[in-house]
Parts: sequence; C-alpha cells; structure tokens
Amino acid sequence: MEQRVRVHCISVSREGIGAGRAQSFEQPFGHAVDPGQLFSWAGATASWPNRVDAGGTRGVEDRITRDFSHNIGAEIMGRNKFGPQRGPWQDHEWQGWWGDQPPFHTPVFVLTHHERPSFTLSDTTFHFVDLSPQDAVEKAKAAAEGRDVRIGGGVTTLREFIEADLVDEMHVAVVPIELGDGLRLWNSPEDLTDRYHLERITAPSGVEHHFFWRR
Amino acid sequence: MEQRVRVHCISVSREGIGAGRAQSFEQPFGHAVDPGQLFSWAGATASWPNRVDAGGTRGVEDRITRDFSHNIGAEIMGRNKFGPQRGPWQDHEWQGWWGDQPPFHTPVFVLTHHERPSFTLSDTTFHFVDLSPQDAVEKAKAAAEGRDVRIGGGVTTLREFIEADLVDEMHVAVVPIELGDGLRLWNSPEDLTDRYHLERITAPSGVEHHFFWRR
Repeated sequence: MEQRVRVHCISVSREGIGAGRAQSFEQPFGHAVDPGQLFSWAGATASWPNRVDAGGTRGVEDRITRDFSHNIGAEIMGRNKFGPQRGPWQDHEWQGWWGDQPPFHTPVFVLTHHERPSFTLSDTTFHFVDLSPQDAVEKAKAAAEGRDVRIGGGVTTLREFIEADLVDEMHVAVVPIELGDGLRLWNSPEDLTDRYHLERITAPSGVEHHFFWRR
Repeated sequence: MEQRVRVHCISVSREGIGAGRAQSFEQPFGHAVDPGQLFSWAGATASWPNRVDAGGTRGVEDRITRDFSHNIGAEIMGRNKFGPQRGPWQDHEWQGWWGDQPPFHTPVFVLTHHERPSFTLSDTTFHFVDLSPQDAVEKAKAAAEGRDVRIGGGVTTLREFIEADLVDEMHVAVVPIELGDGLRLWNSPEDLTDRYHLERITAPSGVEHHFFWRR
C-alpha cells in the first residue's frame, strides 16, 4: 500500500483562523483563542485521543476522531505546536503539552532550526529536525514503517506542506465562531479545489467538516 | 479496553428494508433488491473492503467505511448472508460469496442449525455454530483477542441481536429508494431511541447515515 500524507482534526474559525497572535504557556493557541472553543466538537467524542474518562459520543464526529491514529506511523509538527518557546532551546525540561502519555504513540518529528536531542515519553519519541517539508516527509515515511504520515499542524506548518503539494488528504473542521485575527490556514477552502476534491457536511454540533483528497 | 459489539454499514431502504424475499444465487439480496443500489454509497469510497481497484472517494462516507475493520477481531453473520442454501449443508463446495480473499480477515461465526466443519480462506476462518445470540457473542469475543466483535447481518440476524440487547453501537445507512416489501430491520429508527442515542447526517450522496450508541 502506498504511504499517504494525511491531516486530521485541524480546527479553524469561520474565517480560517487556527491560532491567535502571541502564543504563550498560558495561551497555547495565542491571544483570543480558547482551544476549548475550537476543539469542543472533538473533545465530546468517545475516541478523542486526549480524552481521559470513559463516555463520549459515538456519532459522525467520533468516526472522524477514530481515524486520527488509524494506520498512522509518524507525525510531523511545527515547533509552535510543541511549545511556546522561540529561538535556541534554553533547557530540555519542556517536553511538550501532553504530560507523560502523549497521544501520538509513534515517532514525532518537530520542525526547528535549533538542535535538541531526541527523547521518549511512553511510546512517543520526539525528534527535532531542521528539514524542508519534502525532506521531513521523506524521513517520517521511513520512520512510519509502511504506515501513513500525519501532518499535525499548527496552521502555519500545515500551509507550508500544502503549498509544497505534499498533502494527500485533509480533514479540517470549520467551527462556527469568529476570531478576528490570527494565523490563517486559508482565505477560503475553495482556494484548494483546483488540486483537491472537497466534500463538506455539517454535523449536529454545528461544525462544518471539510474533507479534501487529491484530484 | 472493554470489548464492544458493533454494527457497520448495514444499508436499508427508506422503509427499513435490507433484503427482499426469495434470496437466490442470482439475487443474493432477494427479489427486487439490487445490492448495487443499496451499497453504491459504500462502493464509491476508497476504503470499502470489497473495492478491487485504486481510487474512490475520501470524504465522510470513506470515514465510515474505514471504520468497518478498525479494531474488529471477529464477525458474526447469519447463514443467509453466507449463502442462499437452506437446510442441511448438501456439500461443502460453497465457501461464501467472496472468493479466495474474503474481506473479513478475522474469524467469522456463521449461525446455522446444521453442522459443518470450519474452513479457512486466506486470513478468514469460517466457523459454523448453532448458538443463541448471547452465546455467539461470548464465543466471538473470546476469538477476537481483546478486539471488538462486528455483527455482520443480514437484517433478520441483526434484529435478533438488537432484541437481545447485545449491540453497543450501530451504523445504518438509509438509502433514498423504496423497495415495497422484504426483510425489515425496523419500522422506524425511532423504535430504538429509548435505549440508544441517535445521530443522523445526510451525506452528499443523499444517503442518511444513522449512528446509534447506548444511552
């Protein structure tokens, strides 16, 4: 089976904004963006990887979150998804937002211009790499042992991979809120329909789910 | 993780009919039912287990067909899904509809009152068992080695498992066609909402997907 590059559960506002300015420890998604608002549709499902208790819905949005890890062998993420630091790594105490049991369960490649040794938490190993999108995909595919590669975001990183034409399929949740300004995934999902099929459905939560796959 | 009993991709007409009368080799779903009509939504997707070529859609209905095999360790099916024969097995040449590579990839328990030895095709082993729904689920859970059990249908078999309160979650596709008469899954999906949450979405195909999970 051909290895695919997939995007899952990226959530943006109606204007296509996925994060605010001025990311910080207190505001992982930047100013004016409450991750609870952007991700409440996913957090409500039984299969959301960050869920800590039993329960949760098992409707259409659960089919979407179930697929997050299905046949994924590696993730690539931007440095700003990994943490709020900028510039050279001051210390190695920061190990991401996710505690001792990160929800990835595969190698994760963090894109950064600054060197840092790899480390492992539970069954997730974080590698820090200074690579172009093309080279990062090549490295992640090798690590994925035949399975697919997920581009984990944030939106700036994802835009680079879309612009380099490296994404085979993509799920984006458009949440019915407006954020005013911040980091944009797109001006309009229609921007991508020259290269991708686009299917949309609105879930009972009010979130409009966008599915893209290559033409 | 608790083992669950799941139902996936059962397709019925607007009246809840999943098969016609008088099943035969020529008409696996009985009179007046063209399986192409009931399953065209699924056959269009990239992940449909019976797909033989590359291609196919990767929208919301593909998320549904992707989940068909995900974490499933055994299937239970009625005899009439396995083949058109009735009564004692006349010979053992009939090995199901699916050729040398059945799309199950797990043990499959075929409910029948008539003895027949197990056999294996590729990575699917068919066992023939004369068991109540309860006992069949117990046996299938043991064979599934911690994974979930799928009730594969047909609709008569599925009704028995629903009536015995053995189904934890269920996906049913209601296709916008009318069949007049045949084997019914239900009079109305509302019949089940005393025991199940119900979420519905209509896909661009026109099919209304019903997701049930226990209250």
